[in-house]
Amino acid sequence: MPHTSPIDPVDLTAKLVRCPSVTPADAGALDILHDILSEAGFTCAWADRGGIRNLFARWGSKGNTRSFGFNGHTDVVPVGDEAAWTMPPFGAEIKDGIMYGRGTTDMKSGVAAFVAAAIDFVQTTPPDGSVVITITGDEEGESVDGTLALLEHMERHGERMDVCLVGEPTCPEKMGEMIKIGRRGSMTVKFRVIGKQGHSAYPHRANNPLPAMMRLMDRLASHELDAGTDHFDPSTLAVVTVDTGNLATNVIPADCTAAVNIRFNDTHSGESLTEWIEGEVAAVRQAFGVQVETHVKISGESFITPPGDLSAMVSDAVAAVTGVTPQLSTTGGTSDARFVKSHCPVVEFGLVGQSMHQVDEHVRIDHIHELKSIYSRILQDYFA
Amino acid sequence: MPHTSPIDPVDLTAKLVRCPSVTPADAGALDILHDILSEAGFTCAWADRGGIRNLFARWGSKGNTRSFGFNGHTDVVPVGDEAAWTMPPFGAEIKDGIMYGRGTTDMKSGVAAFVAAAIDFVQTTPPDGSVVITITGDEEGESVDGTLALLEHMERHGERMDVCLVGEPTCPEKMGEMIKIGRRGSMTVKFRVIGKQGHSAYPHRANNPLPAMMRLMDRLASHELDAGTDHFDPSTLAVVTVDTGNLATNVIPADCTAAVNIRFNDTHSGESLTEWIEGEVAAVRQAFGVQVETHVKISGESFITPPGDLSAMVSDAVAAVTGVTPQLSTTGGTSDARFVKSHCPVVEFGLVGQSMHQVDEHVRIDHIHELKSIYSRILQDYFA
Repeated sequence: MPHTSPIDPVDLTAKLVRCPSVTPADAGALDILHDILSEAGFTCAWADRGGIRNLFARWGSKGNTRSFGFNGHTDVVPVGDEAAWTMPPFGAEIKDGIMYGRGTTDMKSGVAAFVAAAIDFVQTTPPDGSVVITITGDEEGESVDGTLALLEHMERHGERMDVCLVGEPTCPEKMGEMIKIGRRGSMTVKFRVIGKQGHSAYPHRANNPLPAMMRLMDRLASHELDAGTDHFDPSTLAVVTVDTGNLATNVIPADCTAAVNIRFNDTHSGESLTEWIEGEVAAVRQAFGVQVETHVKISGESFITPPGDLSAMVSDAVAAVTGVTPQLSTTGGTSDARFVKSHCPVVEFGLVGQSMHQVDEHVRIDHIHELKSIYSRILQDYFA
Repeated sequence: MPHTSPIDPVDLTAKLVRCPSVTPADAGALDILHDILSEAGFTCAWADRGGIRNLFARWGSKGNTRSFGFNGHTDVVPVGDEAAWTMPPFGAEIKDGIMYGRGTTDMKSGVAAFVAAAIDFVQTTPPDGSVVITITGDEEGESVDGTLALLEHMERHGERMDVCLVGEPTCPEKMGEMIKIGRRGSMTVKFRVIGKQGHSAYPHRANNPLPAMMRLMDRLASHELDAGTDHFDPSTLAVVTVDTGNLATNVIPADCTAAVNIRFNDTHSGESLTEWIEGEVAAVRQAFGVQVETHVKISGESFITPPGDLSAMVSDAVAAVTGVTPQLSTTGGTSDARFVKSHCPVVEFGLVGQSMHQVDEHVRIDHIHELKSIYSRILQDYFA
């Protein structure tokens, strides 16, 4: 068995941050991880697809009775307004115990922490089982050739995880305060209402699409989707834009567009919500005599890993290391856990996410060490 | 007393059309009229203001007991898509009894017809009274330095009209079918609803301005302003545009704008409607906790010259010449009659307006002759 010295997760985070892997570019980030994991005795394979690099790594035999998985990503969102950064966005510079750079929080430090924890663990206390690591370069982008490609690769090669921990930032403000055990679903519906153009002085000769759109959006926005469930907040619908572009106040426009974004819990599915919306559209179509086109895009269904052994184990590890008992939550946006959940029970735990996607994104050095300790303890407990 | 030969209204229309007087340009049109009227014994004066030329002309003494007025304009709307014209837009070319060109209908032929009728009338049967002609170069534009400037000039110089006929096109399809005895008022209200930007996944941290705007516009658009009055159609409100310009479906926008255009009858005034709208705005402001900015522009109040001697006289003349008994109407957009009504009773009668503001605007030659005959007859009846 190969043997390497312990991996410093801060040093590894810095190495990864210095790769400007703005999605979908990889910029060498996954090669660094591939080399470290290979050297530590992990069997590595590339699950590339559609120009995206994806790294699969397994320690232990494929047929082992227990297999613990980690999932993460090395791609990052764009720098944004570079002039507004006070530190180099790909410099990984450390000042007063804080490392700055794009991806320091989301989520190169999370990846570095679980890679370091996994290598330490298999080196120091080789488990009776497998540790699987799946890292994609396509989480911040379209997410179609990333974790989905890794899961397909695993299925094709008979690989598996019995449980999986996604290392995304999950804590709103304080380290350790939140574990995500599920996520709401997300969908976007675009609308175009088509009437008949005309002169404002002769509205009876036109058919204004705007009153129909106003009514439709008012009905959608004021409808209470649900009151929340045991593990989920109430579902929400946000009308995100309504546009006409008519500059002439004496002209009734021919059409109008709008979009709504829905974050939904397990009371609903993308299909049931589509059906509800089509009903509302039909009512407005009939009441106003307009045409209505809709375009539905379901980004992810809601899912939950009900509180149980996995969340209890992660919770105990977090409490032991940080002294904080985490809340089990299903709030927030989407993550690749929405894909992993089809493969095995999945929870998410990681850093404080406050600075993610922002200028001067940063991570506290002591938090990286704490995160590695938590991941180490989870591995120890799982294989105990 | 000077004496000229009868004016051919078709020839005069052609001369005026050949002046490309796209508002606010005059291009010599008013000089032509000034010269013809001066030569025929009219006292002419310029009432120019703000770079706009306006012509005042009076036949007869200022202090005469009876004074009949005509009002019109020589400015025209732009040519539009010149490539789409099949005839030169300022050529005044005649083909198959029809003259083509911008302003042939709206309203150089109307001006030519009343100038020709007035000159003929004062030359052949000098009346015991005055004939006043007011022609502006600012009706199609902002209309602030046009007929308003003429009326101010008249007031300053002790000039007056006892009644006035505006020669705008008034007939929807058939020559003689419609006299306008009033107009609806027109106003435009612009709205900006201001909330708080945020992420679609966390709508409770944002305050989406769109539901408030949807509710406000739905309430305004679905409210029945009135059921019409004796002389007016029901008032109408058209939501003409609603705009957000938010391209990101995961972002709740900070603000949203909209505009409505109201055409209102004598049930309302600009002030009463503003009050109603402010009430609706206050309700939405309170219900949704948003800021709402409004900007009101009243283009004109509604007005009516109730059916009586003036409309009966015009009606009789129309019926005598065309064989058609005209309807007394208050439909359509605004005209300078909205200014004249503060000075004296005013009605409008003119050509078939179908092609006005369009490509290949045109007028039937026989209609120009008919219009001159109608105006002549009105003068004869008035001074009889």
